[in-house]
Amino acid sequence: MPIACLTDARRDEALGELAGWALCREGHGIERELRFADFNAAFGFMTRVALHAEKHDHHPEWFNVYNRVCIVLTTHEAGGLSERDVEMARFIDAIA
Amino acid sequence: MPIACLTDARRDEALGELAGWALCREGHGIERELRFADFNAAFGFMTRVALHAEKHDHHPEWFNVYNRVCIVLTTHEAGGLSERDVEMARFIDAIA
Repeated sequence: MPIACLTDARRDEALGELAGWALCREGHGIERELRFADFNAAFGFMTRVALHAEKHDHHPEWFNVYNRVCIVLTTHEAGGLSERDVEMARFIDAIA
Repeated sequence: MPIACLTDARRDEALGELAGWALCREGHGIERELRFADFNAAFGFMTRVALHAEKHDHHPEWFNVYNRVCIVLTTHEAGGLSERDVEMARFIDAIA
């Protein structure tokens, strides 16, 4: 079964819960920037996200320089946002 | 002692050895894109680079999506390329 895109109503509801995330890519993705104490903390965070991503077979697009991590979540198979992105964003918020 | 920028001659010599790397940012950085079998392999590579970076206190700027990793090396303290970038590029080439 293909992965379903969020409806506009569901997307708005999810964004209401996800503080710090903003729509990007014309509504097809969400993004958040995080800052940590240093590279050790930033890459430690990235490693936790990577393990989660691999387990759930849903991977972020992300950029890192030193203590800064910029993350974009989107679901390529759905051509936009799906519940997988909401779940991943929640996980990131919980550990950030 | 501040970190010295490479001379133009040294920069050209170093680039001659570093296959796959190209100048970027108006000559102030070098970049390489790598592709791996999957996310597991890409993030495994990134983890090796992260450990090396932390040990040498010289960190990459990098972007990852699934099996693709784009890396930029530059030395902010030098305002351009330094021997630290050459050393890091060599390490990356050795493990990629």
